[in-house]
Amino acid sequence: MIIVMSHGATREQIDAVIARVREVGLSAETIIGEERSIIGVIGGSAYEYREAFSHLEGIQEITPISKPFKRASREFRREDTIVEVGTALIGGDNPPVMMAGPCSVENLEMLLETAHFVKSLGAKILRGGAFKPRTSPYSFQGLGEAALQMLAEAREQTGLAVVSEVVTPADVELVARYVDVLQIGTRNSQNFALLSEAGRSGKAVLLKRGMSATIEEWLLAAEYVLSQGNRNVILCERGIRTFEPATRFTLDLNAVPLVRELSHLPVIVDPSQGTGRWSLVRPMALAGVAAGAHGLIVEVHPRPGQAMSDGGQSLGFPEFERLSRELGRLTEALAPQPAAG
Amino acid sequence: MIIVMSHGATREQIDAVIARVREVGLSAETIIGEERSIIGVIGGSAYEYREAFSHLEGIQEITPISKPFKRASREFRREDTIVEVGTALIGGDNPPVMMAGPCSVENLEMLLETAHFVKSLGAKILRGGAFKPRTSPYSFQGLGEAALQMLAEAREQTGLAVVSEVVTPADVELVARYVDVLQIGTRNSQNFALLSEAGRSGKAVLLKRGMSATIEEWLLAAEYVLSQGNRNVILCERGIRTFEPATRFTLDLNAVPLVRELSHLPVIVDPSQGTGRWSLVRPMALAGVAAGAHGLIVEVHPRPGQAMSDGGQSLGFPEFERLSRELGRLTEALAPQPAAG
Amino acid sequence: MIIVMSHGATREQIDAVIARVREVGLSAETIIGEERSIIGVIGGSAYEYREAFSHLEGIQEITPISKPFKRASREFRREDTIVEVGTALIGGDNPPVMMAGPCSVENLEMLLETAHFVKSLGAKILRGGAFKPRTSPYSFQGLGEAALQMLAEAREQTGLAVVSEVVTPADVELVARYVDVLQIGTRNSQNFALLSEAGRSGKAVLLKRGMSATIEEWLLAAEYVLSQGNRNVILCERGIRTFEPATRFTLDLNAVPLVRELSHLPVIVDPSQGTGRWSLVRPMALAGVAAGAHGLIVEVHPRPGQAMSDGGQSLGFPEFERLSRELGRLTEALAPQPAAG
Amino acid sequence: MIIVMSHGATREQIDAVIARVREVGLSAETIIGEERSIIGVIGGSAYEYREAFSHLEGIQEITPISKPFKRASREFRREDTIVEVGTALIGGDNPPVMMAGPCSVENLEMLLETAHFVKSLGAKILRGGAFKPRTSPYSFQGLGEAALQMLAEAREQTGLAVVSEVVTPADVELVARYVDVLQIGTRNSQNFALLSEAGRSGKAVLLKRGMSATIEEWLLAAEYVLSQGNRNVILCERGIRTFEPATRFTLDLNAVPLVRELSHLPVIVDPSQGTGRWSLVRPMALAGVAAGAHGLIVEVHPRPGQAMSDGGQSLGFPEFERLSRELGRLTEALAPQPAAG
Repeated sequence: MIIVMSHGATREQIDAVIARVREVGLSAETIIGEERSIIGVIGGSAYEYREAFSHLEGIQEITPISKPFKRASREFRREDTIVEVGTALIGGDNPPVMMAGPCSVENLEMLLETAHFVKSLGAKILRGGAFKPRTSPYSFQGLGEAALQMLAEAREQTGLAVVSEVVTPADVELVARYVDVLQIGTRNSQNFALLSEAGRSGKAVLLKRGMSATIEEWLLAAEYVLSQGNRNVILCERGIRTFEPATRFTLDLNAVPLVRELSHLPVIVDPSQGTGRWSLVRPMALAGVAAGAHGLIVEVHPRPGQAMSDGGQSLGFPEFERLSRELGRLTEALAPQPAAG
Repeated sequence: MIIVMSHGATREQIDAVIARVREVGLSAETIIGEERSIIGVIGGSAYEYREAFSHLEGIQEITPISKPFKRASREFRREDTIVEVGTALIGGDNPPVMMAGPCSVENLEMLLETAHFVKSLGAKILRGGAFKPRTSPYSFQGLGEAALQMLAEAREQTGLAVVSEVVTPADVELVARYVDVLQIGTRNSQNFALLSEAGRSGKAVLLKRGMSATIEEWLLAAEYVLSQGNRNVILCERGIRTFEPATRFTLDLNAVPLVRELSHLPVIVDPSQGTGRWSLVRPMALAGVAAGAHGLIVEVHPRPGQAMSDGGQSLGFPEFERLSRELGRLTEALAPQPAAG
Repeated sequence: MIIVMSHGATREQIDAVIARVREVGLSAETIIGEERSIIGVIGGSAYEYREAFSHLEGIQEITPISKPFKRASREFRREDTIVEVGTALIGGDNPPVMMAGPCSVENLEMLLETAHFVKSLGAKILRGGAFKPRTSPYSFQGLGEAALQMLAEAREQTGLAVVSEVVTPADVELVARYVDVLQIGTRNSQNFALLSEAGRSGKAVLLKRGMSATIEEWLLAAEYVLSQGNRNVILCERGIRTFEPATRFTLDLNAVPLVRELSHLPVIVDPSQGTGRWSLVRPMALAGVAAGAHGLIVEVHPRPGQAMSDGGQSLGFPEFERLSRELGRLTEALAPQPAAG
Repeated sequence: MIIVMSHGATREQIDAVIARVREVGLSAETIIGEERSIIGVIGGSAYEYREAFSHLEGIQEITPISKPFKRASREFRREDTIVEVGTALIGGDNPPVMMAGPCSVENLEMLLETAHFVKSLGAKILRGGAFKPRTSPYSFQGLGEAALQMLAEAREQTGLAVVSEVVTPADVELVARYVDVLQIGTRNSQNFALLSEAGRSGKAVLLKRGMSATIEEWLLAAEYVLSQGNRNVILCERGIRTFEPATRFTLDLNAVPLVRELSHLPVIVDPSQGTGRWSLVRPMALAGVAAGAHGLIVEVHPRPGQAMSDGGQSLGFPEFERLSRELGRLTEALAPQPAAG
């Protein structure tokens, strides 16, 4: 951590800061500049100690120099983490993995219809909401365990792995009994009790970015899972809050290459939640993969106009087919080329 | 709900929309405009049915006209709700209520020292964190039940009521045993299981605004508590995420008069969390009350430089004393004036 | 425009609104709903008249139903506009056009070196700043007309067309004398005097999105150019302001497919300005094209570490070569497929 | 400026950075930490040289430690600047100055009616738009010079000073001929040619914050005026762009005490533009003054429902009277107290 002293800081103020640094057990080195002095604090985590200095006089700013996340960082682990789910390998140089299915599981029939369809087009994982966190208490909240049983049945019939959201720690054990991947939604991305419990389950965790989470905070959320000894974390960009009203959220694809720099964890993209408009899903899905995403999670519904939730952002079957076709060509074009190419 | 048809919508498309409106059991009236037609849908909640139409052809936009919150709205209840906590009356024309205390309860001594001090300056409620939701798993997470016991002891000695945060549904019963007001923090403002459980506890609930929650979403979060039959909800503006890096959050005081228009619930302000800088706490606390807040919640620490969390935004005793003094004058100046005045 | 009356609006209030609608020369139709009534106002522009109603009693909300932009809209012109610049065709189904060059023109030698290099890799337009709008008055502000002369020389030698920014109306004539495309930067995206002047010049205009402009406002900015009779507008997404500090701006690729829905104008992407980090430029450039962009504008510098401005976001030659290669494959993969394919 | 080396940076990389620092004429000191090393760069402006290092290997981050604004900073001038306009003293401990008047000057009669009214309630400066920067080219753009003449006439009759917006450098001389204060609007807050020209006019400049300007960028905009030798700059907070749709902008009152810390310049608040809803203007005006604003600028119209622009945010006469009355009591309550008080 670096402590920047203000322009007029006195020698006494500088000494008082150094004394405090030593008091908390760290060591300090000082650079006396023309306009202001800086004190480099060595050892200890800036985030723990930072506040210990904030009331001392003559300080202009305290700047951490280490990232606060550890296990999620590239420095902790240089090689890409590859998460194995069913037949899918997510991460590294593996081709992007498609996860698809309805926003909510509405009944077995529509689920199976969708599952067979997306599988036929190369999807490896079936998504489907059983517990839905809804902004209004008066909206449809999902079928709960009945939906989980349908997902398990769909897995049985199609061989697809299954991902579904868990919204509260008490449900982790239940959901984990049925699914291959526990999804943590954007509204729970700083629900630390839930993150820890999901971590303890040992299941792979699909961690959506909080709609107002910085990339640093998102990686810290992953850290809650990782610190339970669970290495199977898949990050998922799903749109952030901005001033733009034309889309429900602003899908932030910049996060994809940036996360790949900062972390070894796989990162996928959710263009359905991220845009909230089905007509944007296909172009933004392609863009996500071009940006380097390790996979996609897409809402697909046999009859979107009759969906019980979020039909406006679901692809119908013809649109999903078009997406799959274009995605295939894109993936091939961007695959690492042979040396002679 | 209003369905706006696009410019080139055909008569067939308009008829198809009307047919679908009737199919879901609602009724429709149409206005044929010069450039585009609109269909007014009568009955039913726009939020439930909106998606049923989003894939029909020729639709430009679907606009809800009712607010999605009910019990929280002024239309549901015209008179201000007044929440009674200990000796405090929060809401309506009552003078603003001061809640103050340390960010985290660190030990009994500092808690009592703070409690006696803030009480002597007119505070009615003692705040103190027992369970701390921290962005990093490696930060201090609070003393848990031990802290709750200290809060109870401080209440015993001072007569102050007590507010403390609860972070997960499983803890609601425990925290409710010790405190007068359950606080739901910004990171849990859409933790619907927690909101419902807090609602069921019957305790007053202090509901912080989510850092990326619109005012509508915040009132919908309140709706989760209210819909459990619990009317004692206190809203708390605590800063939102914006592009401005100079403050930790942007305390959005516009929310205060706006919430007072839209809702009957009391609304208070947290200038400590909202700015993250102690030097801004006093002016923004005064501004909050001038904007119409029913109370304040302020972090106070006997020795902020030694706080175990958020010392940088805590007031020391002299600053809190100055705030109390100025607040007294401000409150008097803004009090409803006698007719002859 | 639709006027939504509030829940408790009286018959008198409704009649007063209708009377006012007629007073300003428009006609009204009313739908009496269960909870609230709505008044459809027919004729006239909502944006002109909206304010005439805002102080009437009993009104909850006034919602425009027509978009405020006209000439920029798909409704005004169904076919894609194709802007011709030098040998480049920008828009429609034409392959994406590459514009590349240094942030600032620093001297003739580096400009020519860059121009020959990017031309050899397929770029059609040379970019280079002559007048630089800088946040600080103490930063390098560009070489002015001398830089424009160098750009003209580079065009002469390479056959590339040239784009450069103009920052104030008084300079439009000067800049237009040297360049093929006038660039309006993000900080001037609501400098309406400049937009109009650029429109009058008859030159093609590259209109960057304001960093806090909604898509609607951006199209309205285009409208200032179009309304001068100048149809050659190229829109350019270049990143918006959000809470995320890890990138300089948040490049909003959602804007690309959305603008293509709403408008007939071509839209390109600036991944250099949009991310502010050279390591993100290549993936976000590819993503932009996958999202449907009609072109890219990329900062390239022979020796980015010595650039006089924005070196941190400039690609060096080897990175630009890699981008060009990958872009070629991507473009081919996404090209419209022959029917038998 | 501080250069933070990345975790795995080699000795060679550190040496290369130091060599480059010296090459550009600065000096360097190094602190070798446990996890990473930092290099303090002494002399020169970080903002000028920062980019010179961004492409060197092994660098994690470059952090400026000096603020980029100079003449606007408290370090440059410790005492509050007080701007004198007509009979008003704006800044320091002077009581808040009220500027009021219509959004647009519509005709002489309504202007005089408003001017006499606001003057009778203590306003010192009359506002009124002559040149209106409008988002749409089809909206009313103001009466231009005719409006300026009416403002001059109103000054003549009432003794009020006059403030009006200038939107392009070519108009500065014209507007300056008629008004006491040149207003630079939010959309021109980074129109550097305009800022410089306004600076050269010698008139006082009311500088609105850009709707997406950080506080640092706002002070840098002021720097453009100050660097022309013009010290009479009044900053004006007028709302920023956030995700909240319920208000037109989010008036950011945190900026008031923060600007007072960072700068010696006076800062006022515009609650009309900042909220866009007349019902929020009074509470937010009071809040602004409680936060420490040196003045207010408020839109007042004799018949807001008939205003030609922004009627929805204008106060009618009775609301302005109530505001004035409450403001008087508030100002008195917050005035510095006599020692014996």
